[in-house]
Amino acid sequence: MTIPIIFDTDPGVDDAQAISLLMASPEIELVGLTTTFGNVYVETATRNALLLTELAGQDIPVAQGAAYPLVKTPFPPPAWIHGADGLGNQSLPDPTRKPEAVCAAQFIVDKTRERPGEITLVAVGPLGNLATALQLDPTIVDRVKRVVVMGGAVHTGGNVTPAAEANIFSDPHAAKRVLSAAWPMTLVGLDVTHKAVLDPARMKRIASHQGELGKVLQHSFDFYADFYEGALGIDGCCPHDSCAVAWVLKPELFKTAKGHIHVVTEGPAEGLTLMASTDRDYLDDRWTQGGIVDVCVDMDGDAMAAWMEEVLTA
Amino acid sequence: MTIPIIFDTDPGVDDAQAISLLMASPEIELVGLTTTFGNVYVETATRNALLLTELAGQDIPVAQGAAYPLVKTPFPPPAWIHGADGLGNQSLPDPTRKPEAVCAAQFIVDKTRERPGEITLVAVGPLGNLATALQLDPTIVDRVKRVVVMGGAVHTGGNVTPAAEANIFSDPHAAKRVLSAAWPMTLVGLDVTHKAVLDPARMKRIASHQGELGKVLQHSFDFYADFYEGALGIDGCCPHDSCAVAWVLKPELFKTAKGHIHVVTEGPAEGLTLMASTDRDYLDDRWTQGGIVDVCVDMDGDAMAAWMEEVLTA
Amino acid sequence: MTIPIIFDTDPGVDDAQAISLLMASPEIELVGLTTTFGNVYVETATRNALLLTELAGQDIPVAQGAAYPLVKTPFPPPAWIHGADGLGNQSLPDPTRKPEAVCAAQFIVDKTRERPGEITLVAVGPLGNLATALQLDPTIVDRVKRVVVMGGAVHTGGNVTPAAEANIFSDPHAAKRVLSAAWPMTLVGLDVTHKAVLDPARMKRIASHQGELGKVLQHSFDFYADFYEGALGIDGCCPHDSCAVAWVLKPELFKTAKGHIHVVTEGPAEGLTLMASTDRDYLDDRWTQGGIVDVCVDMDGDAMAAWMEEVLTA
Amino acid sequence: MTIPIIFDTDPGVDDAQAISLLMASPEIELVGLTTTFGNVYVETATRNALLLTELAGQDIPVAQGAAYPLVKTPFPPPAWIHGADGLGNQSLPDPTRKPEAVCAAQFIVDKTRERPGEITLVAVGPLGNLATALQLDPTIVDRVKRVVVMGGAVHTGGNVTPAAEANIFSDPHAAKRVLSAAWPMTLVGLDVTHKAVLDPARMKRIASHQGELGKVLQHSFDFYADFYEGALGIDGCCPHDSCAVAWVLKPELFKTAKGHIHVVTEGPAEGLTLMASTDRDYLDDRWTQGGIVDVCVDMDGDAMAAWMEEVLTA
Repeated sequence: MTIPIIFDTDPGVDDAQAISLLMASPEIELVGLTTTFGNVYVETATRNALLLTELAGQDIPVAQGAAYPLVKTPFPPPAWIHGADGLGNQSLPDPTRKPEAVCAAQFIVDKTRERPGEITLVAVGPLGNLATALQLDPTIVDRVKRVVVMGGAVHTGGNVTPAAEANIFSDPHAAKRVLSAAWPMTLVGLDVTHKAVLDPARMKRIASHQGELGKVLQHSFDFYADFYEGALGIDGCCPHDSCAVAWVLKPELFKTAKGHIHVVTEGPAEGLTLMASTDRDYLDDRWTQGGIVDVCVDMDGDAMAAWMEEVLTA
Repeated sequence: MTIPIIFDTDPGVDDAQAISLLMASPEIELVGLTTTFGNVYVETATRNALLLTELAGQDIPVAQGAAYPLVKTPFPPPAWIHGADGLGNQSLPDPTRKPEAVCAAQFIVDKTRERPGEITLVAVGPLGNLATALQLDPTIVDRVKRVVVMGGAVHTGGNVTPAAEANIFSDPHAAKRVLSAAWPMTLVGLDVTHKAVLDPARMKRIASHQGELGKVLQHSFDFYADFYEGALGIDGCCPHDSCAVAWVLKPELFKTAKGHIHVVTEGPAEGLTLMASTDRDYLDDRWTQGGIVDVCVDMDGDAMAAWMEEVLTA
Repeated sequence: MTIPIIFDTDPGVDDAQAISLLMASPEIELVGLTTTFGNVYVETATRNALLLTELAGQDIPVAQGAAYPLVKTPFPPPAWIHGADGLGNQSLPDPTRKPEAVCAAQFIVDKTRERPGEITLVAVGPLGNLATALQLDPTIVDRVKRVVVMGGAVHTGGNVTPAAEANIFSDPHAAKRVLSAAWPMTLVGLDVTHKAVLDPARMKRIASHQGELGKVLQHSFDFYADFYEGALGIDGCCPHDSCAVAWVLKPELFKTAKGHIHVVTEGPAEGLTLMASTDRDYLDDRWTQGGIVDVCVDMDGDAMAAWMEEVLTA
Repeated sequence: MTIPIIFDTDPGVDDAQAISLLMASPEIELVGLTTTFGNVYVETATRNALLLTELAGQDIPVAQGAAYPLVKTPFPPPAWIHGADGLGNQSLPDPTRKPEAVCAAQFIVDKTRERPGEITLVAVGPLGNLATALQLDPTIVDRVKRVVVMGGAVHTGGNVTPAAEANIFSDPHAAKRVLSAAWPMTLVGLDVTHKAVLDPARMKRIASHQGELGKVLQHSFDFYADFYEGALGIDGCCPHDSCAVAWVLKPELFKTAKGHIHVVTEGPAEGLTLMASTDRDYLDDRWTQGGIVDVCVDMDGDAMAAWMEEVLTA
């Protein structure tokens, strides 16, 4: 029996790794990819989603979603991190397929209606598509199996500001809506994703097993790793988005805690994700509103990277 | 040559009047109705949109949209104003048609792509569908002919709070996004809609010309007018949503001013629409961001009510 | 029996008029002047307070207060309205007296402790001194006779931004604290102060009765009136601060309504004063917190100006 | 040559320890104690400040300050932590002296004017007095030697909410003003104060050297330690406020980093202190406004507790 997943993504180098991981995992049924702005413009995200699945010979539906944050004024995508094409600036052919006629949010709503209780939503970009799905059909909270979000940071600081991680910062209003919704939810944030490093040697071994897709992954990794070395002094890269996939398939690598998540939407702290642990009492009920989230507070980073290689070289 | 309109609506008694007005106006091509929560739950809004068009024998597409605000926690619809069914609590048959497969936002995006520069969006409920359309395709601002919003109040106070009008209050984040977008836009707020009164005698004459639809309008009017009499001491009702239609067809009834509109999203002033007139200078550029809106500041209320009757009894 | 008043002020041209009015009114016992930044820097306000009372031969204590807003970053005083010296740029001698050893807030606390229930605080600048008095001794709310504030606008727009009147905008946090405190309070805002005009002929007659002080008033009026003519097309000036004095001595000139006042402290609406009338019900209790304020909603402007002349030429 | 200090305090059990430490340190000239609400009502804080200095036979001026936050509505002091009397509920005689005639903020302004560049302000309660000093005289930033604040938490969570430490939470607006002012400043927050534990044995040895004062310290410690054991599972207590004193006298115990501090004043994150390290670049200049703060990021907790004993048993 497989795990049906809709993967909400803005590929993006580490998104591409995670998509490869999903396609290589026999336990996963990849119901569809839904795309959003974030690491790249949404049109580029859609193009990459189509292309990466085609390179792997998989005919997986792609539905395009948010081109823009719900409320805030967007800023241009970080071409210096992922390349203008989201894959480290490489010349790739056009995909042959087209995205779905329906938008990402509606694709999510439709699929979860067709298969109530079955689908896990794994979201690794800004959260506009999930917010819009909640807008269209708030009862979806009872029909997803689980929502796994790569985003935020509850014990360590952010990466785009001292307060905020990029996915949350890019659409804090969407994040507020999604992270306070009463669906079963796991948050995989910088607190854990910074613990795994995909190093050049491991990447090379992975690429050599992935054929055409492997070449694309290698090229994009090289570009991304340059950024990591320059900005963070890391040899390799943190496979952020793959950690969310790992949580689905290898939850034993993680330690989680339960809490409510509050997202700050205004002012210098915009994009901050605050965790109110269910372990303690609070002065006021602002802290106990919204759903209870399983927040990843620790991960075995070495085991995570090793597992990633294992799946992608099987 | 007709004016193609998509009418974004939460019927609702005054919405039903406006829909009737649109259907009775030969100058109008009603491209579709898109529905939102607001006066009623969105499922009820959709049902009423289907029903009202069927009663008039018109096969107009209906696309369902926002069931919920983008960010804020919703409150139940005001059944004491519009009835639980949105039409003053009457027993009506089920509609025979179904809504479109695509959601409201996507319907709007698709139609404006098919007919660039042609379509006027008239929005008379909370603004989630238009906000989501902007999320899916921000370039829509260059493809609509105009957006006409019934909502807000710039010189007088609100109706649900001292600060806020109901449509804006119901989804202030959506309103902030929509009212700051750089599309040609007209705001028809309480400053003018409170100047027209549809009185019982006029309503009776209208109903007598509208067949089956007329009976529905009369019943819903009677319920709505009871609220107006009790709460506001008005004999009849203010046809808020019809004023937005009037702006499209009889702009000479209105006086407008140009300004930027700021929507407050947090705190006690949430839902407030502030106008920064283009006539004056400001201390800081917070006031001159976003598009310039044509804000209705006066309307000939008597002429508006008379015109309404004229159209609906032709 | 006289009315003991502490006048909290940032003189300023219209403050100087109000101070003259207080000194000329036999019903008033001017217990002291407390000064704040606002129309001028606080040191200039203090100097002017000392000077104006000396010119009238009155030995009234002056206590210096807020040089800065409580929280927000200040902006320079509007020298183009009041002159860099606050009196239309005239060469005046130094005052011979010094301000009190205690600061304004403490002066207010001390005097209201000495004379519980007797003193009326009339505040016509940014509200930092009253906010600090509340910080030092919250029980002062039971010991003042009344607080009369010149500031804000509840039915008309602001004067420094579309939302805000200058006194409130200059220290919105102080205003929020003061206007929500549970003391007997009257708000005299732009809704009424814009209804009175002190015209040049009337000013000339007043000046001719006020000796040395009259010359200073005339000079500062001429400068101020130039601003009014250029910016607002008014021949003369609005004697804003004198309206607060008028409310104490001639309340029959005013129409008031009762409500809670909410001050917005953040975002583009910062400095907005929202009134929640006690006449209506509200969805949530955010609106009914804080004290109930007597808000001036109308004033006989012509009678106000005539009364001003009457007092100052007696 | 001694270090002149004004100690701004809300005694409070750990405040009493810090006051004792200051009085026992020959390098310190204790210029005065200024009091604020916080651990107790301000009247209690003032009483304790007078009493503790009298018990040590020292005639140190005490000036009373903030009874209330600048803007937010206060909540009652935590009698379950410090006792209703702030000293673990013990029967103590009334002090014989009275506080100064001037309030705390003015005391601070006056003393820093008398001795420019000399005085270190050590503030271990809510920051209203320092905020008011800045309001009365913003140029004080150039006249203090340094400001040392016990408050906040930049890398760990809060203690009263998931976001906020008690001193900052109690008056976030004051904290925002103080922590963004351009004076030389050190922040001693929970990140370090939680690293020192004053255990019962050490406390006993200290008390035995402190005469009458020692008995008071012992009694209050016992009460406070009960709270620590019950709520935090700690045997003893964290001497938070003494850490701020330690920073002045034993800076070698600390590791600091430089950054701007932003305080969140609204919403669930109210009271959060965010650090924007000067080590990195930021997307926008919101992060680089305000003064640069020396933020304590590590402390040798064992050495701190040992030093405390050394001073108090000398």
